[in-house]
This record gives sequence, structure tokens and C-alpha cells, in this order.
Amino acid sequence: MAQLESKIHEVIVTTLSESGQAHSAPMGISEVNGYFIIQPFKPSATYENLKRHRQCTINYTDDVRVFAGSLTGRREWKTIPCQKIEGQYLAQALAHTELDIVSFDDGDPRACFKAKIVGDYTHAPFRGFNRAQSAVIDAAILVSRLTMLPVKKVQQEINYLTIAIEKTAGPRELEAWGWLMAKIKDAGIELDND
Amino acid sequence: MAQLESKIHEVIVTTLSESGQAHSAPMGISEVNGYFIIQPFKPSATYENLKRHRQCTINYTDDVRVFAGSLTGRREWKTIPCQKIEGQYLAQALAHTELDIVSFDDGDPRACFKAKIVGDYTHAPFRGFNRAQSAVIDAAILVSRLTMLPVKKVQQEINYLTIAIEKTAGPRELEAWGWLMAKIKDAGIELDND
Repeated sequence: MAQLESKIHEVIVTTLSESGQAHSAPMGISEVNGYFIIQPFKPSATYENLKRHRQCTINYTDDVRVFAGSLTGRREWKTIPCQKIEGQYLAQALAHTELDIVSFDDGDPRACFKAKIVGDYTHAPFRGFNRAQSAVIDAAILVSRLTMLPVKKVQQEINYLTIAIEKTAGPRELEAWGWLMAKIKDAGIELDND
Repeated sequence: MAQLESKIHEVIVTTLSESGQAHSAPMGISEVNGYFIIQPFKPSATYENLKRHRQCTINYTDDVRVFAGSLTGRREWKTIPCQKIEGQYLAQALAHTELDIVSFDDGDPRACFKAKIVGDYTHAPFRGFNRAQSAVIDAAILVSRLTMLPVKKVQQEINYLTIAIEKTAGPRELEAWGWLMAKIKDAGIELDND
């Protein structure tokens, strides 16, 4: 049975730096013939870490602050040592997978790492969809492309996403949303709620 | 610890009809002081069922076909008998909660049922965010309000959501999306991909 039902899953990939420090980054992963495909941009810490140390964890978390934090300089999330690999997983992951990289294609602008599952652990239940979480994920992707997008498009998308935030966000989503909106304003883009 | 971290979680509520048949419906639920709050519109099968038989399950599923199916006449999802209540839960739920209704406010247009958790079960891990799943949830909410919205707004939102479907959907999301788009077209609304 496939582990990933859909084409692309937004997760946190945690790798180890040369000094052994955990580095967590949001990534869209996929599954092909039972292998997980991880495609970090170059240059990036995830790319460097995976090239050197061919193990990592995939963390499935609904705490969207980890996604928004990665784009706004907040990377100090608590991690826990793995069981089957030399690695760390996120303390707030609802589930995590431990992986060995089995091969790698050094493409541009993204490398492609093919990974084999060596451990799979569930920590807490999924609690259903929250539209504010989805809005933060969408806004995080928008922020990661801020310099490539027309200002008007950014403003329109944020206006649309704001509706879900206002109606359905809890404290974690509001905090993550605040970080992303500050980053957009810092880029000189005016938002309606200014 | 709160069970629901965010303000509103989109889930499937499964109730029993008078003849004992399971009825599953999408609903946005919340948690207040440790109780789950379920607010079905009136009239509705969920409202009638909960008023008569004060037990239900909350099903946390990432299979968005259950959400889209409910709005397009597809309700035959496999269920499994509960452990702590007289009820059924969805076979494809990643987790489910069994609940007793402890009080109820017969408001209009929505009643408000306050529910106590009597059982909580995890069946399969969360696998991260999928933007196509979120797009189906958003489109399902749009379809549920189709008669109340300007045609242009429906078209614009569907255009926006289509991007996530094209990039990240798997077979389940594509099937659910197809059902919803057919319903919008049946309502006489033209879509760009016609």
C-alpha cells in the first residue's frame, strides 16, 4: 500500500548538519514505486546535509508555525533522536518516517534524492482539516516566491486567504500568519489590514 | 490538553438514523472547555439523528471524497461499529472520537450540541498537508453555498483552487474535484476548463 495517497505532500524534512545539529525545512515530497522523492533547491542546507549524510526524517506536523518559521528565521524547534537512523525528528510531529537515501540525481535548480523507508512512527492523531492551516501553507509558499510575483497577485491571494484565518485560526495559526504578514510588509507590499 | 488546537476543524460527523443506518456529513466542529461543539443546520439528518439518539462519532479523514460526496449524493461509505457507544465510524478515518451528547440548544438556523468524549482511537498516521485536499474542502464549502454566491466569485475561486489541484492532486482528490465541478456546471455556471 502506498504511504502517500496524493501527488505532493507538504512536510518538514529534518537533516543533520556536519556538526550533528538538526536542520528542519518545509518541502513538498512525493512517492514513486515505494520510494520517497525529496527535491531540495540548490544551494540549501537540506541539499548539503543529504549529500554528506544520507539519512533524514520526514515529519508530518499540523503545527504550521514550523512552515512559517522556516521562512522567517525561526528554526529552533525541539527534536528527538531517531530509532533506526542517525537523525532527529520534530517533537510536535503527529507522525514521522525515518529514511535512508538510496540514490541521488544532482540536477539544477533542484537535486533529487530517492529515499527508502526504514522506520515509520505515529505519535498523535490527525484532527481533521483546518482551513487556517491550509491558508498558512499557501501563504508560506507565496512568501517563498515573493520576489517573483506581481504585488497585486500577492495582495489578492492574501485577501482571499485572510477569510479562512479570521474564521478558523487557533493561536498557532495566528502566530504563523503574523510572521508571514510581517515578512510581506517588510518587502514593501501593502496589505488591506494595515 | 485540548484535543483540537485550532478554532474550527473540518470533520465527518456520523450519526445513526431511526432504523440504525449510519449517516455521515461534513461539519466544522470546535472545542470549548473540553467539550466538542457540533452545530448542524436545521432541517438536516444529523440534527434529527442527534436529537433522537444522543451519540455520534467524529471522523478525521484525509479522504476528501467523503466531503465532496456528501454534497453530490454519494454517501455510501463503509463504516465499522464503535467500541464505547452505539454508533459507527468511517472505515477510512485516520482517527475517530466516540461521543455522548450532554446538552443541546435548539437554535436557528443551527442547533448546538455539546458532546463529551468517551473514546478516542487512532487508525493511521497523518501524512502531511496536501494542497489539493485543501482545495477540495474549499470547493465543497463553495458548492454548499452555490445559490448564495455571485457567479463571478464562484468562477474566480475555482480558478484559484484549480492550480493546487493540477499541481498536487492524487486520484482521490481528482475524483472528488470532478464531482464538485460537475455540480457547479449543473447549476449553469461556466468554468474556464469547459
